Amino acid sequence: MTSHPKHYSSKLDLKNGTVDMTHGSGGRAMAQLIDELFVHYFDNDLLRQANDQATFSIPAGRMSISTDGHVISPLFFPGGDIGSLSVHGTLNDVAMSGAKPLYLAAGFILEEGFPLSELEQIIQSMGRASAKAGVPVVTGDTKVVERGSGDGIFITTTAVGIVPEGVNIAGDRAQPGDKILVSGTLGDHGVAILSSRENLEFETTIESDSAALHGLIADLVAAVPDIHCLRDPTRGGLATTLNELAKQSDVGMRIIEKKLPIQPAVNAACELLGLDPLYVANEGKLICIAAAEHADKLLATMQQHPNGKDAAIIGEVIEDKMGFVQLETSFGGNRVIDWLVGEQLPRIC
Amino acid sequence: MTSHPKHYSSKLDLKNGTVDMTHGSGGRAMAQLIDELFVHYFDNDLLRQANDQATFSIPAGRMSISTDGHVISPLFFPGGDIGSLSVHGTLNDVAMSGAKPLYLAAGFILEEGFPLSELEQIIQSMGRASAKAGVPVVTGDTKVVERGSGDGIFITTTAVGIVPEGVNIAGDRAQPGDKILVSGTLGDHGVAILSSRENLEFETTIESDSAALHGLIADLVAAVPDIHCLRDPTRGGLATTLNELAKQSDVGMRIIEKKLPIQPAVNAACELLGLDPLYVANEGKLICIAAAEHADKLLATMQQHPNGKDAAIIGEVIEDKMGFVQLETSFGGNRVIDWLVGEQLPRIC
Repeated sequence: MTSHPKHYSSKLDLKNGTVDMTHGSGGRAMAQLIDELFVHYFDNDLLRQANDQATFSIPAGRMSISTDGHVISPLFFPGGDIGSLSVHGTLNDVAMSGAKPLYLAAGFILEEGFPLSELEQIIQSMGRASAKAGVPVVTGDTKVVERGSGDGIFITTTAVGIVPEGVNIAGDRAQPGDKILVSGTLGDHGVAILSSRENLEFETTIESDSAALHGLIADLVAAVPDIHCLRDPTRGGLATTLNELAKQSDVGMRIIEKKLPIQPAVNAACELLGLDPLYVANEGKLICIAAAEHADKLLATMQQHPNGKDAAIIGEVIEDKMGFVQLETSFGGNRVIDWLVGEQLPRIC
Repeated sequence: MTSHPKHYSSKLDLKNGTVDMTHGSGGRAMAQLIDELFVHYFDNDLLRQANDQATFSIPAGRMSISTDGHVISPLFFPGGDIGSLSVHGTLNDVAMSGAKPLYLAAGFILEEGFPLSELEQIIQSMGRASAKAGVPVVTGDTKVVERGSGDGIFITTTAVGIVPEGVNIAGDRAQPGDKILVSGTLGDHGVAILSSRENLEFETTIESDSAALHGLIADLVAAVPDIHCLRDPTRGGLATTLNELAKQSDVGMRIIEKKLPIQPAVNAACELLGLDPLYVANEGKLICIAAAEHADKLLATMQQHPNGKDAAIIGEVIEDKMGFVQLETSFGGNRVIDWLVGEQLPRIC
């Protein structure tokens, strides 16, 4: 992200202006957009250096990298917007390796005609989320496509982090006998998005759970360095994520319906909308799998953290070469929870 | 990028199939797309681990990160396609810090209805470019937007690399007296894209110069560790990039028109199209600024490398608090080469 500390003939019209093709051309208009929006709201030394890359010192060790595109619709929703989501979502993917996220890179694809006022709101929100998480946006890129070739704004973020020594968290480490924990209520994000998309009004507004989880994860890793798996149940929800982990680890899983934390309002909305909360996306929750002996300590650690107060032990890993995820229903029955096959909710993140 | 090593009921129809919304849903269709295309063509151990992030060991030192969105139109052009471009462009941004690029992350935003056959061609080309460069794509993400909300495919790539000890290359290090070098002919990429967009036929096909430059840079840094600035003159071309560097370093620059390497066919095409080759994008060239005493050695090193055979010393850095870039024209005159103000070529990368 190259910026230019000189003056422009006039300030960007953030009230009534819109994105035009010159904002992606590499020339003066792009430089102004970067200066007056990106550098202004992401303010940090590395970005201000205005090179096409950011360079920083790192210790020797294991590094984690993850990237995520964000195409959510609508751009603004109860509990967040595409800006804060694009910070939280990618930080979380890096943190799920046990890493401490250090830096973010952000790539913007803007559609010609997108209001600069909305862009400012989004960049401001990204800046706030990144400052709160302590992970600065140190480099970036902006492209503009013609009207009709995009949809307002897409944001692809990439995060890097350092994994503490002795930590080895991966999807293939679940073992029979391990306990499965979830850090809080399920389905909040997906239901919040769908409600706002459909203009549904419930008695209480359901908010997205979008949040950065690296603080919670640092506490968990400090309490129990030998966590086997961590993963955030985003697209496809809890059911799909457990199936992924079961396949990767070549194990089965058994979860207990009545242990699943689900807000009554989310349950009600799911019934109304014909959704199964097990398949609905979350953006501020994690699944944690570890040896049974550590489960109580992990649960207590979660419950002490603001992002884990509704945490629960929801089941266990079992031997099963078929890799099935089974649900013990509230009525005492058993059913297999398969992958999401079709599509439940498009553009949920 | 989570993948799933199990079998699907049938293979993807790469000949006649198209992208649909389920390919972005996080469920089974997305897993299949990842397995049969991304993991297949990017084949490497880290990606195959199928976690939402990639984790690798690094030495202590300085790390460089850069991200670039690619929205080029058309997707396929003489000399490359959006796949190879998205590898080269981002590797180059990292390499311009003197770093050796190590890993790539890739985020895809696909439009519903995009032919899987074209997607396969692009992924195959990315895989080839990344293998040739020795920089694997180790993690990724796929999103799908509805028909009409995107434009086939956008690819945002992020690269990380390690800066060798003692190397300190940055845009603010140009000093009066330094020499300015360029590694080869100017304007090839932009003219190739515009010609293919307008269906123009010239006597010889002008090919994009899209190439990974980290090999050339490694040679330059080995020859002269104290290079002051490196930057690739992409969007906005040589003129814009020199203006950026002049501003960052608080210096002026004087370049000599008759020293500028420009292919005759590119010059002719620019005249026909009303373009100034100084403002036309390059995707496989670099500007190098270093103390005058090192200039000949840098030039010789460039000329010995396949990516630098047409290299030239094109001018020098001068004292100028106004930060002007001046061109000494072939007729002996002098003119100021300003920033690109409007937009020369949209969606050139």
